[in-house]
Amino acid sequence: MTTELSNLFGYPAAFLTTIAFVPQAWQSWRTRNLAGISLPMYTLFTLGVALWLGYGIAIGSLPVIAANSITLLLASVVLWLKIAETRRIALLRKIEPPT
Amino acid sequence: MTTELSNLFGYPAAFLTTIAFVPQAWQSWRTRNLAGISLPMYTLFTLGVALWLGYGIAIGSLPVIAANSITLLLASVVLWLKIAETRRIALLRKIEPPT
Repeated sequence: MTTELSNLFGYPAAFLTTIAFVPQAWQSWRTRNLAGISLPMYTLFTLGVALWLGYGIAIGSLPVIAANSITLLLASVVLWLKIAETRRIALLRKIEPPT
Repeated sequence: MTTELSNLFGYPAAFLTTIAFVPQAWQSWRTRNLAGISLPMYTLFTLGVALWLGYGIAIGSLPVIAANSITLLLASVVLWLKIAETRRIALLRKIEPPT
């Protein structure tokens, strides 16, 4: 298949999987409701995106660097809020253990 | 930078961002708690991953096809559960509108 045809998939794919984290980070930040969010997911994902950024730097690809910098920032926000929530719950359980 | 060195980033990056969705899909399936999950995020992300799969097919890359097939399946589970929860809440609001 030609490069032009594959780019028809590649560019919107990169755009969508990058901007997808905008509504998630915004919702998590605004509501502070992290109940359904998986801590292991955001731990693995944020680490993975940081490695993608390293890959982009290694191969010198500006689109890979740009997309993964944005995703790294947004995923880090969600991860940070989730860690804060997990610590808050752990602290509350220490004060008032569940019966 | 050499290809070997960039692959040191690329392969673990692809592995982590793919398997990250396993704990999220599992938690969402098990708990049915989708409260903190953003519907726009999973809509955009699932569509984006489907396009990445199309890209993988277009360039004939087996690793891209494999990784995105797994992510597409896992992200679809979360999206499907979120849609089900959103419809359930909308139905409940119709029966009993919030005061």
